[in-house]
Amino acid sequence: MIDVAFLGSDVRPAATAVVIDVLRATTTITMALASGYERVLVAGGLDQALGLRAEGRVLAGERDCERPPGFDLGNSPEDTLKPLGPELILATTNGAPAIVGAVAACDEVLLACLLNEDAVVRELATRSGDILILCAGTNGSVTVEDTYLAGRLSAAMDGPKTDAALIAEAVAAAYPEPIDALDVSAGAKQLHVVGLGSDVAYCAQVSTTEVVPRVARTMGEAAVLEAALINV
Amino acid sequence: MIDVAFLGSDVRPAATAVVIDVLRATTTITMALASGYERVLVAGGLDQALGLRAEGRVLAGERDCERPPGFDLGNSPEDTLKPLGPELILATTNGAPAIVGAVAACDEVLLACLLNEDAVVRELATRSGDILILCAGTNGSVTVEDTYLAGRLSAAMDGPKTDAALIAEAVAAAYPEPIDALDVSAGAKQLHVVGLGSDVAYCAQVSTTEVVPRVARTMGEAAVLEAALINV
Repeated sequence: MIDVAFLGSDVRPAATAVVIDVLRATTTITMALASGYERVLVAGGLDQALGLRAEGRVLAGERDCERPPGFDLGNSPEDTLKPLGPELILATTNGAPAIVGAVAACDEVLLACLLNEDAVVRELATRSGDILILCAGTNGSVTVEDTYLAGRLSAAMDGPKTDAALIAEAVAAAYPEPIDALDVSAGAKQLHVVGLGSDVAYCAQVSTTEVVPRVARTMGEAAVLEAALINV
Repeated sequence: MIDVAFLGSDVRPAATAVVIDVLRATTTITMALASGYERVLVAGGLDQALGLRAEGRVLAGERDCERPPGFDLGNSPEDTLKPLGPELILATTNGAPAIVGAVAACDEVLLACLLNEDAVVRELATRSGDILILCAGTNGSVTVEDTYLAGRLSAAMDGPKTDAALIAEAVAAAYPEPIDALDVSAGAKQLHVVGLGSDVAYCAQVSTTEVVPRVARTMGEAAVLEAALINV
């Protein structure tokens, strides 16, 4: 069965979970691994991220969309395109709890964004068992952009689908171009307000990388992401 | 703000809540009031419904979609078209907790189905403050049919809308006719399996009545529904 959960807190058991936080956590993690970071440590809060700081670890994150004081980088995907060390710590409010929750409920956890869409679809075609596409949402609210990508992934797969998957596919069909879906979202509007509107266009690019982040292990409340071995 | 919650358990505060359980609770309650029942007592479980039984109260409900032993009627809207007494008790698994939860969080609670769609839109146009369209869902799962009607209601209203409302509107736009949205749903398939497929077509009728059920009060875990005074 192919299922979609609209919020990270709605996670349920499945063989494979695909976590989505288009604006911006899963996009940033994907591009960090694509750019040469060996792994990304995803932490829920700023304090937790600071606690993971160590030699060779670059600290990235956001508070109200912007780079917090003392952090090396913000949460913009473009901030990670030149690796500053082997490991990236990313503090993300909505992505981290969704990822950690998925690890607790599901056998394997992958991450998707528009930039690795085709690669994720090919990875999923090699898996058996139930697939849960888990939208992180924002602060407990459902988002258009996560649901939109969930629908694109569902539509690209064969198999029985839940009502939630059909709802997501309707959202995917409603917007001709990814940027249209992102632009109507509350998350994109907030990024424009704080001067990070260019992140929206960046996150709307489709299938520019083959990297599919996969949870290798957890460290307490944090998750360790590495690039999945590509099935070609 | 116009907002949509995809599950009864996702209720949040609003001036006005509109609860939807297209298949079949809110359709049955609407048609019972339209047919002449003075009020409908909505109970969560069969035992709770049996506990409300009294002189002049007709007992309706379902277990696995079918009429339970000892009940006067099932949960088909057409069962209520000839009133057998002044009050109907309706045992409904998903509708009742959504309605009672909405009463706890919101100032006023109305019920919508396709059959009273236009009347609900006109009622809402007279209200001020935030509107929460609350889909009951089925056993904790999101349903296409409830989200579809939520989207139709949202699309018929002016005002700022949340991402969840935009998602529902995409679902409304995806199906040319109401019966198309209902037919793809897991709930409709289950009704066909148990021989109640005619309920699906009945619940897909649009704006055949002016009655808008409104919660007048609660009785413990049950809600008392009466027809709202129509604003014309």
